[in-house]
Parts: sequence; structure tokens; C-alpha cells
Amino acid sequence: MAQFTCRTIDILTGHRTVLVNRKDCEHVDIRAHDRVNLRKGDRSATATVDTTTTIVHVGEIGITNDLIPELGVNEGEIIDVSLLPAPASASFIRKKVMGHKLSKDEIYSIVEDAVKGVLTDVEMAGFLMAQHFLGMTDEEEVWLTRAMADTGEKIDFEKPVYDKHSVGGVPGNKVSLLIVPIIASAGLLIPKTSSRAITSPSGTADTMSVLAPIEFSAAELKKVTLKTGGAIVWGGGLHLAPADDIFINVEHPLRVDPEPQMIASIMAKKLAVGVDFMVLDLPVGQEAKIPSSDEGRRLSFKFINMGDKLGIKVRCGITYGGQPVGYTVGPALEAREAFEALEGHGPASLIEKSTSLAGMLLELGGKAVRGGGQELAKQILASGKALGKMREIINAQGGDSKIQSIGIPVGQCKAEIVAPCDGYITHVSNAAINQIARAAGAPIEKGAGIILHGKEGHKVSKGQTIMEILGERDSRVDEAYGLAVKLAPISIEGMLLQEVSSD
Amino acid sequence: MAQFTCRTIDILTGHRTVLVNRKDCEHVDIRAHDRVNLRKGDRSATATVDTTTTIVHVGEIGITNDLIPELGVNEGEIIDVSLLPAPASASFIRKKVMGHKLSKDEIYSIVEDAVKGVLTDVEMAGFLMAQHFLGMTDEEEVWLTRAMADTGEKIDFEKPVYDKHSVGGVPGNKVSLLIVPIIASAGLLIPKTSSRAITSPSGTADTMSVLAPIEFSAAELKKVTLKTGGAIVWGGGLHLAPADDIFINVEHPLRVDPEPQMIASIMAKKLAVGVDFMVLDLPVGQEAKIPSSDEGRRLSFKFINMGDKLGIKVRCGITYGGQPVGYTVGPALEAREAFEALEGHGPASLIEKSTSLAGMLLELGGKAVRGGGQELAKQILASGKALGKMREIINAQGGDSKIQSIGIPVGQCKAEIVAPCDGYITHVSNAAINQIARAAGAPIEKGAGIILHGKEGHKVSKGQTIMEILGERDSRVDEAYGLAVKLAPISIEGMLLQEVSSD
Repeated sequence: MAQFTCRTIDILTGHRTVLVNRKDCEHVDIRAHDRVNLRKGDRSATATVDTTTTIVHVGEIGITNDLIPELGVNEGEIIDVSLLPAPASASFIRKKVMGHKLSKDEIYSIVEDAVKGVLTDVEMAGFLMAQHFLGMTDEEEVWLTRAMADTGEKIDFEKPVYDKHSVGGVPGNKVSLLIVPIIASAGLLIPKTSSRAITSPSGTADTMSVLAPIEFSAAELKKVTLKTGGAIVWGGGLHLAPADDIFINVEHPLRVDPEPQMIASIMAKKLAVGVDFMVLDLPVGQEAKIPSSDEGRRLSFKFINMGDKLGIKVRCGITYGGQPVGYTVGPALEAREAFEALEGHGPASLIEKSTSLAGMLLELGGKAVRGGGQELAKQILASGKALGKMREIINAQGGDSKIQSIGIPVGQCKAEIVAPCDGYITHVSNAAINQIARAAGAPIEKGAGIILHGKEGHKVSKGQTIMEILGERDSRVDEAYGLAVKLAPISIEGMLLQEVSSD
Repeated sequence: MAQFTCRTIDILTGHRTVLVNRKDCEHVDIRAHDRVNLRKGDRSATATVDTTTTIVHVGEIGITNDLIPELGVNEGEIIDVSLLPAPASASFIRKKVMGHKLSKDEIYSIVEDAVKGVLTDVEMAGFLMAQHFLGMTDEEEVWLTRAMADTGEKIDFEKPVYDKHSVGGVPGNKVSLLIVPIIASAGLLIPKTSSRAITSPSGTADTMSVLAPIEFSAAELKKVTLKTGGAIVWGGGLHLAPADDIFINVEHPLRVDPEPQMIASIMAKKLAVGVDFMVLDLPVGQEAKIPSSDEGRRLSFKFINMGDKLGIKVRCGITYGGQPVGYTVGPALEAREAFEALEGHGPASLIEKSTSLAGMLLELGGKAVRGGGQELAKQILASGKALGKMREIINAQGGDSKIQSIGIPVGQCKAEIVAPCDGYITHVSNAAINQIARAAGAPIEKGAGIILHGKEGHKVSKGQTIMEILGERDSRVDEAYGLAVKLAPISIEGMLLQEVSSD
């Protein structure tokens, strides 16, 4: 135990942190990240130590408004500071770091303390790095997933719940806007929670936000879903598996995404909304998250196995993720294209992907025989039932149920990229399309994005428009255009291999 | 890029951190730990993002006094915030995390940015965890060591420099106070930099601080050493290898000490003071840092090999670390015992360990033939030359050169532990002795500590004093006494095996 003179700091930081001069750490057994007990008379509080060389002098302790009321301490008064042992969860993290398997209770303790804010970023980094380097057993993964679900909000729909999830990484993947109304039309419950874009130009939540509000409480999501059979809302507002965001914040600077954590992140949110049947879209391609079909198959078995242990029946669809889905990228453009498909005039590739994934869910739900799901999905789409259901859902979420694709406003500022030569499109770069669409303002400026006029295999002529950049501000469209010229997202080759010379 | 409304926060934190509401992170591509550029008119600054749910609202950015003068920004004004790419060093850390070997330039970049404060704790945790799980190649270790030395203060003594270092972990290890004057008496240069106690009751720096000031600049250390041949100072004041403390602060909460980092930490400080010859004390014992002789030998070869590559000739001494060295623990008590040994009446075990390590240095320095070093060291000690030299050093460091062991003040409050039965001491617990001495007030209260009246193998009678606890305050001695009763640091057994019954 040591005594320090209080230096009060008149702000609220939201953290229970005290500041100690780094020189004191040499004398006293207290270091950065340590937890300490602060005592003044009969009052006490706990805090985490941060060190400084400037703000407080040797022998002083800096205390912010977060702790002052609890301690009733004034500038210049003396308080006792004693080191607290690290929480048990920190010792469980060290156990994992040292290569030992964790028990159910140990994993729950780590996840609970992460959610409560008891664990420091460095401790959580230790946990995530141990997962990265050592992996986890199936049992550990199940406990991690359950712990993440159990430490957040949960919804019980009191009926079987269906869901579609994409591992992501491919721009223009607006398939949920077709799948949800198709499934709901068939009488199955599909409360789709989705994310906003983090590194892409539009997440499903961003796209849906063009058509209707997307921020709801758990009770509101339940009401909408039970009324219409479906919903497409932002998962971030529901407080499902809150540990996920906390872990992601620590993974982010290291750009690691340990597989156990990735799987737990997806499955915990499904557990939290009571999903019973789930179709997983695994886009495979050089610039997608999953580079090869082999890797796609390996991950599929992993998810199916984990689903079994968690009571979720999982079917996986390995899809082509080598180029954008459909022809548009960006919130409003994607919403418009999805609506066109619901109205009966969408692109074949979008309809093909959406109905095949929807078909798998229809088969899981007993609405179609094995192999007959896609046909049923296509019928529901062609009949206009899915369009009607989507308008019901939009209406239930507070949007305009009379909306038509033609009425969805997109960016009025525009630039065109033309083909520099005759030839065939050999490649459309997901990474470049993402960057250009974001430069144009997506996802924040909803009308911003890209319209492709050709994809892999299409024949184009010199001077023909192959891509349009749309935006809400000229300056951003100019910036995106410059980037497009530099990145050349669409590769064209002359197919010279087909020419045989007789010279 | 995004725009935020400034919320000024009137404190200096010493960090270039801005606060953003966590909700904004969902909309804008900015997350905790990201670096951002802040721009207001023609002024700009860089900062790291911290997130909050309370201090600033959505759309606001919290800016502390650290950044306000640079930006010339006022409460309520709008500033532009754009994401900066992570520094190259962060990508090198990710490269290591992904299992790739780092180049010299990459390692220098990481260490330089750690020292400049550019890397976040989570990024540094990634670097240290990668070392923990993957190790480093010899080449990487050499670069890490050189980079740590090159990013701090360096001293050139312009003569061969000798040094003794202990890996630590054993209480009462005051051997440097004998070795330094012995070596300096023989005409070799030994500028000993040492640490204060972190988890032990007294580091060499704490013990020396009883006899003379220990905080010096590099120039002052050079002056003292060139004048007397030796010095014993606190390394922390010299700014040698400053990356070490930075990395230790991150390792500490995870309780990991990756071997490459441990070796680099020691060797970088030796490089920084230009050590040419070095003897390394590796105490081995159940409660020491090194549990077995095999492990001691493995580490010895590692240090010798690393020394070769760094141009430092290393010899290692594996010593017995199963119980405290000598009979005293705590700054003043250890200083007094070391002085008694210099005066010719110290305990045999202390003299044996000190002269054997000193002897190895004398052999390295060509002052004795191989095998003859310890004898020479004993002669120097017995002749009183080492005592005279120690007084010269104390004088040069600003202490009282007439000091005698009898004049060193120790704690006046006292408690005694007596043997609960007749028998032989079978074990003295390092861990328990450390805890009790710290409870008594060591190392902050210099007179506090422990005097042992027996060690392993000694025969004791019931009621005989086997240990004294000294302190400067009764309350702390009482606390330490209570702890001693609970921990029973000295085990006594009846040696019943020697009794043969004829019944």
C-alpha cells in the first residue's frame, strides 16, 4: 500500500482510470493497467492505473470526476492506494496464452468481464492472439459462442426462426432484400439482423435504410416480424452479443480475425435471436474473404458442425465472389436494383443467387422438397408475392409501402468510365470497386455508388461506357473518378488467343 | 473524411487522443485505436481515436489541451477528421503475427515507433504475443537488441568495459556491492547499472541508495567510472534502451516475458554502455526465475551465442537460487551485510558467490589465469582493497566515504519468529521472504527487511529465533509478522529418517 496526494481533474472520462507518475511506478509495485483500490477514510473505489510523466508529479495521483463523488476527496488530500489482484478472468486469459484449454466457466468469466469493461484492451488482445496462434477446441468455441449470446439481449419468437447470413466481402450483395420477402411470403419467420458497412460501400443495413427505418429495439423487431413474417433491421441497435464489438475493436488495429472468434461472432447473434435454421452464403474468390473453394468447403463443415452443437441447422452455399453481385454498388443503387428484381426486371445473376439461397431455406422449412426450393423461390418472386411482402415489411418498419424502384433517388452527380479498347472484360476488381464507391461517398451519402455496364465475359467496344460513378457532391465524384482512372477496376483483354495466324 | 463538432476538454493528458462517440464509429470508418488527421482551416494535427458512449455525443469530437493549441480550435467549431493509414511499423507487426520473419529495417521501425509513442498498446501486445508464440530467429533477436540500444542514450567509455548481471529472482542478492569494488580494484572498468526492486524487497539500486546517491546522467556515470574504475547507479535514470520499459508495461498485464524480449532487454542495456565482457549470474531453483539446471544451461548458451553476435564476450555462472543469498533482505540490511563482507566479516555463502562471479570477470580481463580468478578475488577482498575502492566509489557518487557497516541505520521496530520445534531447516521460501519483507515496508522504507538466523541444513531448537522482521513503523512490522505466521517461510523437519527404531 502507498499514499498519494490527490490531484483532481475536472472532467468525466467514462473510464475508472487514475493517473500516476511513471517515476512512482519504479518505487511502488504499481504499473500501467494495474487495478488499484483507492481509500479515503471509510470510502473506497477501484480503478485502473494509467501512467504519465507530465500530468501529475511524483507522489500525486490524478483522479477524474468519474471517481471523485465516490471517494469524496478534495485536491491535495492524501489517499491510500493499494494494488488489487487482477480479476480471475485475466488469469484465465493467461492460462489460454500458456497453451491450456479453458473450461466453460472460465470462458464465461472472460466474456462477462469483457462486456462489463473489467478487462483491459491488452488483456483482450492476449485472448484474441492466443486464439489466432493456438485456435480453440470445438468445446471452447461452443462455450465462447454461448457466452457471447448469453451476455447480451435475447429474443424469443416462440416459433421456428429462419435466417440467411453472408460471410461478406463482395460488393453489391443485396440478396437479403430478395430472400427475406420470399421466405416470409412462404410463411416462415425471418427476422434478418444485418450490419452497416465497415469497409464496404454498403452493408445490408445501409441498403435497407434507403427504404425504411432500420433501428429498432428487440421488442419492436419481434412485433414487426410476428406481424409480417420478416424484417431487415440493423443488428447494432439490438445489443445482441455485445462482446463482439468489444473484441472487434481490439482485433481491428492488429487486422487479425481469428477463426474461432469469427465463427462465434456470427453464431452468437443467431443464438440470441433464436435462429433454428440458417443458410450461410460463403462467397469464394481471389478478392473475397474466402480465397478458394477448398477453404469454402472446410469452413462450411466447420459452421455445420458448430450449428449442430448449438442447436442450429445450418446449410452452406458456396457462391461466386470473384466480382460484384448484380450491377450496382452503394445504398440507394443497390436498393433500387433489388426492387427492380422484386418488380420482375432485375439482373439474372442477382435473381439466380437470391433464389438459390432462398430455395435452401424453403427446403429446410419443409416448404419444398430437396432440389425444389429454388424453383419455388422463383415462383414466389415471379408471382409478385415477394414484392407485396417487401412492401408490407417496409410499411411495418415505418417506410413508404408504395415505393417503386423508379422512385428511389440516386446521386445526381455523375462521371463515366469508357472502355479504352475493344475486347472482353476479364476481371472486375472487388477491392477497387469498394474503394471507388467509398470515395464517391458511399455508404454515408446514400445516393453515391457505382453502376457497372459490363461484367466478366462481356464484350465491349472502345469508347463504350463500362462504368458510371454516381454521387451527391461533384467533388467526391471527381475524387472517385480520379481513383478509378488510377485503379482501373475493370480489365479488358483482346481475346487474341482465338485469332490463328496463317503467316 | 467526416466532419465533427469540437468539444474542448480542459486538461492535458500527455496523449494525442481524441474522443469519438461509439455510435459514430458505426457510420464513419473510424474505430478505437485508429489514427486520424484533424484539420481546421490551414492547421492540422494527428491523433489516436478513443471511443466513448458518454463524454461526447454523436457528431462531436472531444479534444484535450494537448491538441487545442496546434489546431487553434474553439468549442463548437467544425473540424474535418480523416482516417490516416496505420504506420508502417504496425504492418510489420502484422507481418510477424502472420508468421513471417522480419528484416532489420522492419524491426528498427517497430522499436523506433514504440519509443516515439506511435504504436498503441494493442499493437505492441501483438508484437510481444507473436514473440511469445513464435519466438524469433537469432538474426531478429540481434536486430531487436541493437534497435533497443540504438533508440536510447549511449555511453562510450573509450576503454574495455566489464559488467556483471543477474537474471534475478532471488532475495538478498547483494553480490554486486562486492563484485564492483573487487573488479575496479584490479584496474578494470565496471560501470554497473542496476534496477530498483519491482516485485522484490530490494534491487541493487535500492541497496546502493542506502550508501550514496544513485541517480546520475550518462555523463556523470562516465565521470565517476573513469575516476574510480567503478560505479553502482540506477539504470532507469540513464535513458538506456527506453523501449524496454515500454514493452514491459504491455507484458505486465499478460504476465508474459517472451524470451527474445527478455534477452534483448538485458543485452541492449549492455550494448548501450559499451560492455565488452560480461558475467551473467543465472540463479536456479524452484522459486527462482529459472527452475532447473538444464534450463540454466540452455539459457547460458543462448546468451553466449547472442553475446558473440553483438560483440560482447559472455560467461555464465549457474548459481544456487533455492533460498536467499546471505542472511539479510531489504535495502539497509543488505547494504550492511555487504559492507560487513568488505570489512572481512561477512557470511561465507555471500563471499563464495561474489568472489566466484568476480573471478570469472578477472579471468576475462586477463588479470588471472583460467581457474585462478576466484582466488585473486578473495585476495583483493581480504586485503581490504575492495573496501577502500568501495569507499572511493561511494565518495565519487556523493556518499559518506567514512561509512562503516556498524553505522548503517536499520529499522528500529522489530518482531521475531521462533522455531516451533527442534529440527533442521529444510527450506527457506524466496516467495514468502519477498512478500514478508515488502509487507514490512521494503524497499520504500529502507530500514525494513528480514534477518535470517538460519538457512537450509541448519539445526535449530524449539523457541530459538530463526528470523527477525525489521521495519520503520510498528504497524507494518505487525502486518509482516502476521503474514510470516501465515506463510511460514522457513520449514523445519525433524530428520526422523536418521532415527532407527528397534521395537
